[in-house]
Parts: sequence; C-alpha cells; structure tokens
Amino acid sequence: MLLPILADLQRLKRLDRTGWVLRGLAPGAESVAAHSYGVAVAAMLLADRVRARGVELNAERVLRLALLHDLAEARTGDMPRTMAEYYGAEVRRRAEGLAFADAVSGLDEPLRAEYERLHEDYEERASVEARLVKAADIVDLLAQALTFERGGARELDEFWEGAQERDFGLEGAAREVVAETVAALVAARAELRRA
Amino acid sequence: MLLPILADLQRLKRLDRTGWVLRGLAPGAESVAAHSYGVAVAAMLLADRVRARGVELNAERVLRLALLHDLAEARTGDMPRTMAEYYGAEVRRRAEGLAFADAVSGLDEPLRAEYERLHEDYEERASVEARLVKAADIVDLLAQALTFERGGARELDEFWEGAQERDFGLEGAAREVVAETVAALVAARAELRRA
Amino acid sequence: MLLPILADLQRLKRLDRTGWVLRGLAPGAESVAAHSYGVAVAAMLLADRVRARGVELNAERVLRLALLHDLAEARTGDMPRTMAEYYGAEVRRRAEGLAFADAVSGLDEPLRAEYERLHEDYEERASVEARLVKAADIVDLLAQALTFERGGARELDEFWEGAQERDFGLEGAAREVVAETVAALVAARAELRRA
Amino acid sequence: MLLPILADLQRLKRLDRTGWVLRGLAPGAESVAAHSYGVAVAAMLLADRVRARGVELNAERVLRLALLHDLAEARTGDMPRTMAEYYGAEVRRRAEGLAFADAVSGLDEPLRAEYERLHEDYEERASVEARLVKAADIVDLLAQALTFERGGARELDEFWEGAQERDFGLEGAAREVVAETVAALVAARAELRRA
Amino acid sequence: MLLPILADLQRLKRLDRTGWVLRGLAPGAESVAAHSYGVAVAAMLLADRVRARGVELNAERVLRLALLHDLAEARTGDMPRTMAEYYGAEVRRRAEGLAFADAVSGLDEPLRAEYERLHEDYEERASVEARLVKAADIVDLLAQALTFERGGARELDEFWEGAQERDFGLEGAAREVVAETVAALVAARAELRRA
Amino acid sequence: MLLPILADLQRLKRLDRTGWVLRGLAPGAESVAAHSYGVAVAAMLLADRVRARGVELNAERVLRLALLHDLAEARTGDMPRTMAEYYGAEVRRRAEGLAFADAVSGLDEPLRAEYERLHEDYEERASVEARLVKAADIVDLLAQALTFERGGARELDEFWEGAQERDFGLEGAAREVVAETVAALVAARAELRRA
Repeated sequence: MLLPILADLQRLKRLDRTGWVLRGLAPGAESVAAHSYGVAVAAMLLADRVRARGVELNAERVLRLALLHDLAEARTGDMPRTMAEYYGAEVRRRAEGLAFADAVSGLDEPLRAEYERLHEDYEERASVEARLVKAADIVDLLAQALTFERGGARELDEFWEGAQERDFGLEGAAREVVAETVAALVAARAELRRA
Repeated sequence: MLLPILADLQRLKRLDRTGWVLRGLAPGAESVAAHSYGVAVAAMLLADRVRARGVELNAERVLRLALLHDLAEARTGDMPRTMAEYYGAEVRRRAEGLAFADAVSGLDEPLRAEYERLHEDYEERASVEARLVKAADIVDLLAQALTFERGGARELDEFWEGAQERDFGLEGAAREVVAETVAALVAARAELRRA
Repeated sequence: MLLPILADLQRLKRLDRTGWVLRGLAPGAESVAAHSYGVAVAAMLLADRVRARGVELNAERVLRLALLHDLAEARTGDMPRTMAEYYGAEVRRRAEGLAFADAVSGLDEPLRAEYERLHEDYEERASVEARLVKAADIVDLLAQALTFERGGARELDEFWEGAQERDFGLEGAAREVVAETVAALVAARAELRRA
Repeated sequence: MLLPILADLQRLKRLDRTGWVLRGLAPGAESVAAHSYGVAVAAMLLADRVRARGVELNAERVLRLALLHDLAEARTGDMPRTMAEYYGAEVRRRAEGLAFADAVSGLDEPLRAEYERLHEDYEERASVEARLVKAADIVDLLAQALTFERGGARELDEFWEGAQERDFGLEGAAREVVAETVAALVAARAELRRA
Repeated sequence: MLLPILADLQRLKRLDRTGWVLRGLAPGAESVAAHSYGVAVAAMLLADRVRARGVELNAERVLRLALLHDLAEARTGDMPRTMAEYYGAEVRRRAEGLAFADAVSGLDEPLRAEYERLHEDYEERASVEARLVKAADIVDLLAQALTFERGGARELDEFWEGAQERDFGLEGAAREVVAETVAALVAARAELRRA
Repeated sequence: MLLPILADLQRLKRLDRTGWVLRGLAPGAESVAAHSYGVAVAAMLLADRVRARGVELNAERVLRLALLHDLAEARTGDMPRTMAEYYGAEVRRRAEGLAFADAVSGLDEPLRAEYERLHEDYEERASVEARLVKAADIVDLLAQALTFERGGARELDEFWEGAQERDFGLEGAAREVVAETVAALVAARAELRRA
C-alpha cells in the first residue's frame, strides 16, 4: 500500500526546516520537501557533471538516495544542528533508522529491503553516490542561505564557515565538481556582501 | 548575563509546535512560546482553584515550573510525539536536560542551580506542583485542539482519545479540578461535533 | 555554471501552487518545489511497482523527468487550470519550452541538449516514462487535496471528479498500478467524508 | 448576479503578486487585491493633483479603471514579468480579455458592455485616464518595493532601474505630477540606502 | 507630498482584519487593504445596479468614500467589534477622525478639506452614497466569511445573524439592490451548510 | 468556569502584536501570547536578580502580573502606539479595564476580585512588582526588536530611542538590574550595526 508513504510526503511539505526558524526566519521559510527537491536536482546536476568528466557514477542510485534521505523526518521531525549536539549523532541515526523502517514497512519485498539498504548507505556514506548526495545537501543549504541573505537575513554566517574546507570523502572529478560549485556559491555571497 | 536566555525566548516565539504541522495545520499555527504562555496561565488558574478548596500548593513554584518547562526546546526543537517513539523518552529527557543546563549556564549561583532543580522536578513529576503543570500542559493542548477544530481542522481525534482517563498522579482537590476542566473541554468538543 | 539553476530551485521553494490559493487555501499551502518532490517520490514508487510486475521501465528516466517537469515555472510562474483555459494549452507549452531552454542554457553540451529532450518528452508524453510521471503528478495532487480536506478544506470536489476515469495513455501493469493507487486515494477520501 | 464577481474578489485577496515571491519574499507578501487598492488610491491622489493644476480629467473613470484593471487575474493568476517574456504581451492581453469577459458575463446590459469597454481602454491605454492608472500601478509598485526594502529586502534593484525614465504617454500636468511622485520615491530610496 | 499617504497604504496591505484572527483564522487571512478593495468594487457594482433602476447616485463619491473609509486604520489599527464594545462608538469615531486628519495633513488645500469632508460624511452616514458604502462594507464581509467557510472555518455564525434584517438607512432601489445581494449571499451559505 | 478564559488564551496565540506589522514585518511575526511569555520569563529573571542583591520582592506577584497584563487584549485587540496617541492613554485604560473584568467574570470570588486587583495594580504601576513587570515588557520588546534586526529588519530605530533613559519608577537594585539589562541589549544592537 502506497497511501502511508504518500501521506508522509504531504507532511514533509508542511514541515519547516527548523534551523532557519531558530535563526529568526519566519515559519514556512523552507519545508523539508522543498529542500529534498533542491537536493535531488542539485545531486542530478553534480552527478551529470562528474560523468561528463569521464567518471562512472550510478545516477539512478544518486537520485533514489536524494529522494529518500529525509523521508524519515515525516515521523521524527527535523532535528536542528543544535539539537543534534544534545542527542548525539548516533542516537539520531538510530531513531531515523526506526522511523524510516516504519515509513517503508507497507511496501512489498524486495522493494522494502532495497529502500532500507539505500537509507543505510546514505547514513553510512558507504558509496560514492551517498557521499555525493551529502555534498548536494550542503550545496542546496548554501544556495538557500544565499537566497535568504538576498532577502535581507543576517546572522547566517555559521552556515558558510568552513564550507569550502568541508571534506565529503570524495575524490577526483567528484571532488572537483563539488569544490567548484561550493566556491561559486561562496563567491556569489562575497559579492552580495560587498554590494 | 541574561542575553542568551532572552535570545532563547525569541527563538521559542518562532518555533512551531511540530505536532500540529505534522497533522496538516499551516506553519505558524502555534509557537512553543505561545503554548508556554497558555500552560502558565492555565496552571495559575488550576492552582488557584485547588487552593480555593483548601488544599495547600506553592503557586509560585507552579508558575516557575510552567515558564521553564519548555525552555530547552529553543535548543533542541520541539520533538513531536511520533518522534518520541523513535528516540525513546529517556533519550529525550537526557538531551533536554543538557540543553536546559546550557540555557541557564550564564546565570549566577545559586539561581542557576535552582532553575536546574525546577527543571528536574518537572521532568520527574516529583512535586504535586510539577504534576499540576503537566495537567495544565494537557489542558492547554486540548483548548488549542478545540480552537483548531472550530477553525475547521479534522483528524485531531488522537489528542482527545483517553483525555479523560489520563492520570496525572494527582489526588484530592487537585485531581478534581483537573478532571472538571478536562470534562468541560471534552463536553465543548462534543457539542461542536453535534453542531 | 550551476548557480542560475540553483537560484531557480530556490524560487520554486517559495512559489505557491496557485490552484490552492484560488480555492481559498492560505498562501504558503504548497510550493512548486514541495509538489515536485512529491511527484518524484510518487513516480519512483509507481515505477518500482510496475517493474515488480515484470514490466521494463527506465526508472532513472522517470526520476529525471519528474525532477525537471516543473522547473520552468521558476520563470513562468505556476499557471492555474483556469488560466490554462484562457491561454490555451499550446501557448502554455511554447512559453514553458522557452523558459526551460533559458533555465538550462548555462549547462555544457551534451547535457543541455539531453535535458531539453527530457522536457520535450514530458510535454509530449512521448515515452511511457513521461506518461507515468504525469500519473504521479495527479497522484500527488490527489494526496495533497486529501490532506487539505483532512485539515478542513471544502470545495475541492473538482480535483476528484473524473479522477478514476482519467486515461494517462498507459497500458498493462503501469495502467493497473496507477489505477490501484488512484482508487485507494478515492476510497480514503470517501471514508473521510463519511466520518 | 453579483455573487460570481464577489467570489472573484475574495480570490484576489489571497492571490500573491508573484513577482515578490520569485525575488525571495515570503508568500503572503502582497495580494493582488491589496495592490489594486494601492493603485486605486494612488490614482485618485494623482488625478486630484492633476485637476488641481487646472487640467480636466474624468476622475470617476480613473477610479473605475483602477478597480477593474487586475480583476481578470482572479481567473488567470498573476503573471510575473519574467513570464510575460515567454508568453508575449499579445497573448497575455488576449487571455486576460477572455477572462475579464467571463468575470463580468453575469452582469446585465448595458453594464456588462461598459465594463468591457473600460477593460479594453486600460489594455490599450486609449484614454489619458487609462495612462494615469498605469502610472499609478507603477507608483504603488515602487512604494511597495520601498517598504520591502525598509523591511530588509535586497535585490529589488530591477524595479527601480529606469523608473524615472519611463514614459506613460502622459503630457502637461499629468506628466509632471507623475514625474514628481516617482522622483520623490526614488529620493526616499536613495536616502534609505545611505542610512 | 504624497509619500506619507503612500506609506500608509503599504501598512494597510499588511494589517490583518483583527476580527478573523480572534475567531481562529490564521494571521494574514485578510488585510485591511484587501478588504477595502473588496468594498470599493462591491460599492461600484451596487451603485451601478441602483442607477440602472433609474435612481440618481453620485458614483464617483461612492468610490471615493469606499477608498478612504478605512485609511485611518494605518494609524489606529483595526479595532475588532468586541473592542468597540469596550471603547464605545463615539471614542472610536473621534480617534479615527484625528488619525484621518493626520493621514491627509500633507495634502494641499482644498483637497485636504475635501477628503476630510468625505471621511465625515462616511462616519455620519450623511449621504445616501455613504450609506451605500456601509452596505458594501457588509456585503464584502459576508462574501469573505462565506469564502472562509468554504475553506473549512466554523464558528462564524455571528457575522450572519441579523444580516438580512440590518437596516442601512437606504430606500427604494438602493434598499432593494442591497437586500437582494445580501439574500443571495445568505442563500449561498445555506446551500454550503446543506452540502 | 475556566473555558472562557482558556478560549481567550487561544485568541492571544493568534493575535499579532500590531506594531511590528505596521512597521513592515510579516503577519505572524509575534503573537501577544508569545510576547506575554517573553515578559513573564524576563520578569522572573529580573526579579530573581534583584532578590539576589538582597532586596525583597514578591516574585509570585511579579509572575501573576506578567501573565495577566495583556489578557484583556483577547477582547480589545492590540492597540499600537500610534493608535494610543489618537485614543489617549486614559481611554485605553478604561476599555482594557472593562475587557479584563469581562474576561475574569466567570471566576468564583474571591479569585475574581484578586485578579482584578492585580490588573489595576499593573495599570497604575502601584507596586514595585508592577513597575518591574513594565520594565520586563520593554526588555522583551527590545530583545524582539534585536532579533528582527538580526533577521534583516530596518526602520526599528524608534523602539531603541530613549530606551536607556526610560524611567520605570524603580529604585536601588531593581533600577540597577533593569539598567544593566537594557544596556546589554543596546550594546548588542550597536555591535550588530557595526557588523
């Protein structure tokens, strides 16, 4: 039965990304679903760039990982970074694992098991595809922060700090493509602040 | 220094009570700060009623407990009920304890320690005052659910199920006053559904 | 350069699906980005079900089509159904084609051309994958309408009328899977109205 | 029957002016109805100033044109500038003409025909009154942009570019009054940016 | 100088009609500016219908009265009905008179004095035009209430009670046209409740 | 019966603090309930600091005054400062007095009379506790203004002008604690503007 997952998707359309609200943006600033869309398209663009440079990547897997990576939040809510400090990364992972398992529990085998394996891959950054989706997660985060800053928001510095130094565990073309994209975002932000 | 706590308060004004959003209400439906206000006034009213029936209660403690009981959420976010299932009550308690400790860390002694003891009392429902504040928490929840249902919301049944049977560990006049208030809310809701 | 497309994605996170607002829902009810996420996950689920019944489908193509199908709206806005009556389907298609071409104009070849072909495929429903994404578009629309109705919205009947009779040009397992899903949504709605 | 037009008015109260949202402002920033109110009052003020300088103007016609000029958007939605580039001005005009005709189709003759003539006059800027309403449309747009910039919005430069050079096809006192008002808005904005 | 009035108009675009919020609708439900637009168009439609039945009316005055009748609220806020009970109608009138005087104080004579006379006429319902605008105010209120009820709102009964009995001090065709319009709204609402 | 007061609390959760909206912030920026929560916690912190310096204060009274000080606004709405100029402070006080009396009219004696006395104390700033709550009201206002300015808002200067010179009628430790807190907020704002 697909209805429970479809209902979860609708919840994600309403669920705020908590981090923005805790930094003073109005409720409704960005939903988890909207962010997931941004991540999925960014991941597709990054993957296609990487492949254009001659490196093999399973683009279908990239897209599946991106679409599923925040699905569990329909049941756990979006835990802000500050929250994660108090709960600990391990606890968050276990809780989201249980929630994801519930979310896909209505699917037939072998689909259910395949989706679970994708979720585990993402959580452990086991594959290069999972690591690229994590990079896309940050790319969309920075693009969103830049947009909010264009709208007048201040005090979002912490999202930019260390952005260019962040290591996603990628190598070669994948590492280059991500670095170029993050650098372009950082440059656009520097230009905004000079204006 | 009071500034960090004052900043936490402003965050709570924007932070949505997640449960409503996961059930289809629009972002901005109820903030944690607005709920805390509702709980504090409800707790004051309940305590004053209890005292009017000749039972001793420390009303000042009731008010302090109510004002502090959700302060940690400025740092952990509001964990929805469904989330609590995945994290476990114990984990949530520990995380909120750490977050609360951070929130009051800038206060001078002995105030800091006093606030921590109040928070622990609430978490453990150790005093009759803490149990009455928990009852006020539910009273405000039901009053809010009723208001949303008057505004057209459906599918909030789960908040009402078992409301009258819930045991807050109260006795005598305190138990009666809470039971009467919950019964009045349940009756008002029944009337709304008949209309 | 990816920045222009990343900026388009951020616009889609804010852009309301106009149809809901014209029917009385509050601004912010559903963004185009959030809807696109719903469509992409629904399309993945439908495609995986179809494949589980032994029918070949290019799932990667399904996901790409879903992620790109509303991208042009970052530049054209979301045209409501009623609007389409006045403009005509052909005019809308041409305008969105131009806007999509602008949106991807910064990408290197052959990627740019590939994305254009995907968009054309969707607009013409040329492939079975494109037709399945159109079905997913309606599945997510109905799941959203059901959610709004659970939240109290009325007067959304027109979205349900003819939902089960709609022909997406699909055959065999694809046709069955879509029909079962729409039927389940219609049944859930009938149950809601009886409650 | 007035009910269909009254229902259209209610839709315009909820319908966002798309341009702001595409530039990063939150949904709900400005409704089409609120803008139409701003245009109508601005047009009244401009017309009264023009008449005070001894030039004849049909103020009643000015007000009617202002109140009707965006009514069709209840059926077509608000097409952003960027969208207009892809659709073409002629197509937009035709579509809004059809929508306007539908909107007033329930009115008795000769009222229905009179309203249609007013709408055509505005679309063709045939009368000096129609040209003055177009100027009021821009005056309200700039006053709104200035207000958003006071609230912290950035990146609204494009609304101000060429504002003072824009030619509304007005002459004499009408031209002067509009130019003075636009100049005052541009000066207020320059002052804001210096602050 | 028109800038202060233009700034007041922008405030009215954001200012909520308080009555809806006090009855459980979300902030942003209807702005004072959006309502004023609804009143102005409704007043135009009513006036034109009255004239079509052979009764003389100054339609320009009707439109001016409608556009100005709530302008002072940019400075006083929107006082809900319940508030008026505590302040008294006379106090409200005096305060809005002072605020209106301030709002137009920057206009040149004789315009300033003319606008003041229009405002006084509306407050005293001295002319038939002012009484018709008051009727349009209620017509738009009912049309808005009906729209909210279509969206799921309940508990708006008080707006409908006595709607058909209300006497606006109108006679002949004006009385008939208003009565027919209110009756049509009441009938549409009755139909909604049967559905 | 507590239900009418509980319903009033829910209204305060939705009621916007009008002053922000009139200065360009979006509806929903801060509710009266959220502000009252901020005031109550700020008042508790201030009172505890004062007591830590060896000065006696009735903290329970401070909390009760803070929780009740804006309750009447559920019936009168939130009157912005600009509005108060037109109505006069005396009129506002009388109206809120009547509204408060209605709000608590369902409570049993002697509670009802006690609550009325608390409200009168606050309105007349009769006790040192009432004066401290007024100071907390301003402390929370400044903390909120600072938060909005961090979010990008401009043009909130008027809230800061004279903030440090304001005399709340406090003496000794109470005066010092309030002055230190306001000075810290003013310093944080100066730092923000330098950034």
